Amino acid sequence: MAREVSAKDYHDPPPAPLLDPVELTKWSFYRALIAEFIATLLFLYVTVLTVIGYKSHVGDDCGGLDHLGIAWAFGGMIFILAYCIADISYGHINPAVTFGNLLARNVSLIRAVMYMVAQCLGAICGAGIVKAFQKGFYERNGGGANMVSHGYSKGAGLGAEIIGTFVLIVYCNELKVLAPLSIGFAVFMVHLATIPITGTGINPARSFGAAVIYNKAEAWDDHWIFWVGPFIGATIAALYHRFVMSAGAA
Amino acid sequence: MAREVSAKDYHDPPPAPLLDPVELTKWSFYRALIAEFIATLLFLYVTVLTVIGYKSHVGDDCGGLDHLGIAWAFGGMIFILAYCIADISYGHINPAVTFGNLLARNVSLIRAVMYMVAQCLGAICGAGIVKAFQKGFYERNGGGANMVSHGYSKGAGLGAEIIGTFVLIVYCNELKVLAPLSIGFAVFMVHLATIPITGTGINPARSFGAAVIYNKAEAWDDHWIFWVGPFIGATIAALYHRFVMSAGAA
Amino acid sequence: MAREVSAKDYHDPPPAPLLDPVELTKWSFYRALIAEFIATLLFLYVTVLTVIGYKSHVGDDCGGLDHLGIAWAFGGMIFILAYCIADISYGHINPAVTFGNLLARNVSLIRAVMYMVAQCLGAICGAGIVKAFQKGFYERNGGGANMVSHGYSKGAGLGAEIIGTFVLIVYCNELKVLAPLSIGFAVFMVHLATIPITGTGINPARSFGAAVIYNKAEAWDDHWIFWVGPFIGATIAALYHRFVMSAGAA
Amino acid sequence: MAREVSAKDYHDPPPAPLLDPVELTKWSFYRALIAEFIATLLFLYVTVLTVIGYKSHVGDDCGGLDHLGIAWAFGGMIFILAYCIADISYGHINPAVTFGNLLARNVSLIRAVMYMVAQCLGAICGAGIVKAFQKGFYERNGGGANMVSHGYSKGAGLGAEIIGTFVLIVYCNELKVLAPLSIGFAVFMVHLATIPITGTGINPARSFGAAVIYNKAEAWDDHWIFWVGPFIGATIAALYHRFVMSAGAA
Repeated sequence: MAREVSAKDYHDPPPAPLLDPVELTKWSFYRALIAEFIATLLFLYVTVLTVIGYKSHVGDDCGGLDHLGIAWAFGGMIFILAYCIADISYGHINPAVTFGNLLARNVSLIRAVMYMVAQCLGAICGAGIVKAFQKGFYERNGGGANMVSHGYSKGAGLGAEIIGTFVLIVYCNELKVLAPLSIGFAVFMVHLATIPITGTGINPARSFGAAVIYNKAEAWDDHWIFWVGPFIGATIAALYHRFVMSAGAA
Repeated sequence: MAREVSAKDYHDPPPAPLLDPVELTKWSFYRALIAEFIATLLFLYVTVLTVIGYKSHVGDDCGGLDHLGIAWAFGGMIFILAYCIADISYGHINPAVTFGNLLARNVSLIRAVMYMVAQCLGAICGAGIVKAFQKGFYERNGGGANMVSHGYSKGAGLGAEIIGTFVLIVYCNELKVLAPLSIGFAVFMVHLATIPITGTGINPARSFGAAVIYNKAEAWDDHWIFWVGPFIGATIAALYHRFVMSAGAA
Repeated sequence: MAREVSAKDYHDPPPAPLLDPVELTKWSFYRALIAEFIATLLFLYVTVLTVIGYKSHVGDDCGGLDHLGIAWAFGGMIFILAYCIADISYGHINPAVTFGNLLARNVSLIRAVMYMVAQCLGAICGAGIVKAFQKGFYERNGGGANMVSHGYSKGAGLGAEIIGTFVLIVYCNELKVLAPLSIGFAVFMVHLATIPITGTGINPARSFGAAVIYNKAEAWDDHWIFWVGPFIGATIAALYHRFVMSAGAA
Repeated sequence: MAREVSAKDYHDPPPAPLLDPVELTKWSFYRALIAEFIATLLFLYVTVLTVIGYKSHVGDDCGGLDHLGIAWAFGGMIFILAYCIADISYGHINPAVTFGNLLARNVSLIRAVMYMVAQCLGAICGAGIVKAFQKGFYERNGGGANMVSHGYSKGAGLGAEIIGTFVLIVYCNELKVLAPLSIGFAVFMVHLATIPITGTGINPARSFGAAVIYNKAEAWDDHWIFWVGPFIGATIAALYHRFVMSAGAA
């Protein structure tokens, strides 16, 4: 399972307890929550601004352009954020990544829940700042909300979220020097592939924050897909990592 | 020869046997096959989705745009996949790379054949998922199949495949820290250059999987080019590496 | 605070004095000033040429394209310049970065002031060379000057500068091998997001140099935003780093 | 001076002799020439194909697109080629880089001359293959030849070549792990900035090979600029490195 599991393959620490009251007394725990909150806020701020900005400037006949720029914004932000706060909070910035680490018993249940709350609050604030900057552009351009595009079934949308989250989570290895770049590229690649289908979620906090601030029926109708898909993808990734990829499985 | 040969320059292990019955009894052998299968599946899934998605959105007057996004999808996927499964299967994800490693006696004949089967099956599944998501877009947009473009001769197509595979395979060195990035960029560069000629194969499993799922005469007519070209390119790369670039040749 | 603070977390040197007459006698001090001057000159030269060149070639209906190319120019130049002169001047190339390092007591007041002068002079010269090459294109295409775009308030422009500079400065860690790439990507990301709002400053020398050479009222009217915003952003980043992210805060 | 000089700062070897008859008897010398020849051939092959291919597909109203893709092709190829043959020939792939290393006394005169011959022959062959693939597209799309664009003076073209080569050569440091990436980005950046002015040379072999194969008066008229500019840029870079940036100058 992603960034922390690989380390576990070597040091083999005991699984994290489900409830660990001691960690609630440590500043490092609250520092990690702040880091996740700020990182997810900045993630939504930069990426939603990019989505809005491109749509404002691009005509229909060149619509593919925005996909490349938008894909870079998502992938690049995950690279710098996950890289820079890795030592503070492991750089999850994504409830699906946190969920996968919970399944792998790398984090306690209380930490997992608190991370997800911090991530969702950060995402709401990040999208909110974009709307505050220019409400007109924001609303006209869809607010960065995820929904299944015309021409694709809900099943295709769900499948795209499952596979995309699997790609994001399974191919990470904290022990290698290029790992943060690899994680960023995974996000970039999945966006190139699935922006035309759903706008690409693979991060429930990102989808939730955009939906809360955009707050129209079309954004809420498909919203379950952007929680169920990533959590299923994270579960499969955790199983695949445990039974196929990890050193212990060899 | 690519990723494994360089290691050989230093450790100088005995050449892999052509038939090694012992490796058939090891879990690590089947784990490697699973890893190659899943990686090639994800490689086709992401890249064919990107090809389809861009073609759906891009008008003729901006046709060059898709080339850059598509080239990134191919190069970026090879970077993350080859990097992340290097320890499990050496990260071939490409029958031409496996063939080159067979020539260099890095892998046994049985492993080479089984890798190629796993890669081709993975490629078929990956392209199949894309078609299952949205059959209409898939068929209208060529299904990601490789063929020689109007205006280019079959000889130019074959030459492009030979040189492209040579570039991919010869400039890799597992011992250097940036090697996976270099391999990914090699794939990116070759796509920038030869998408207008053939859509760029340089990977017979990628061409085969797309042809099987697309399954129209136009995709099968030139199909031999995308096996013969890469295998010739891999052979030249193996010779060039052995007689010019390897430390032993110095 | 950015590139130097992290080192401080480990070695814990005494804070730099505000006035250090000894450093004025050392060649390494003047060498650092030359390096900052040349780097900022080249930064403006490449980025303003890119802005001008894209605007000359891009029609309105493909207007988003230039954003991606321009964002790469800014981010890529900061990657190579900051990386290559890190050992000579710490690679600030930006008065906001210098200001943050002054707040963190990494540099003396005299060094900070002299760096900013060198950066502003370099920026003026870099933009001046672009104008000298082709005055017509330069003036027609806005000279790379920063101003708040139509449709955005001055408050939004100021906010974009504050948050953008915060992103640039807070997520840097000199001790990690990919840090220069991370800094470059931070600049790339912020440009993707805020080119539509202000053209993106987050570097007062860049904004000042372009304004001096372009020298029209529209470039000077909003100019205060591109000093006040980055300095506020750098101050918040310094506080955030000290009280949340630094090892000492754990 | 670039890639080799920095090593010299630490080990301080004696300057290379101008004439070194012993090196003519070593296989490693001829191996380096072959590596330079093949690398420059592949460099021209990929980049000229990219220039031709983009121009075939891009309408006038999206003309800026090709600049980004073309800039990636040049920068990315230099990254992988310079990285992968660094141990064999130091990865010059450019007479201006070789000239700079001659000035810095890193290579003998005979090696410098033979490198330049190998580079120019490789460039001619690489451009020749592109023309052989599709003569019609090649000729219609300018053959990748460098010339000063309409609207720019010859002085601006010369200045662009001087500064661009300076950027390429001065900011390199073989001892750092990201150096090959930094060199590739330098080439990428310079192309983003100066494709609109001259198509960007900063490599006399690249300009010469394209001119020989394209072979029209318009390509030869300005050709001197693409030798004189890069050699002046390399000279200034050598002086700047020696007297400002090198450790010995501290």
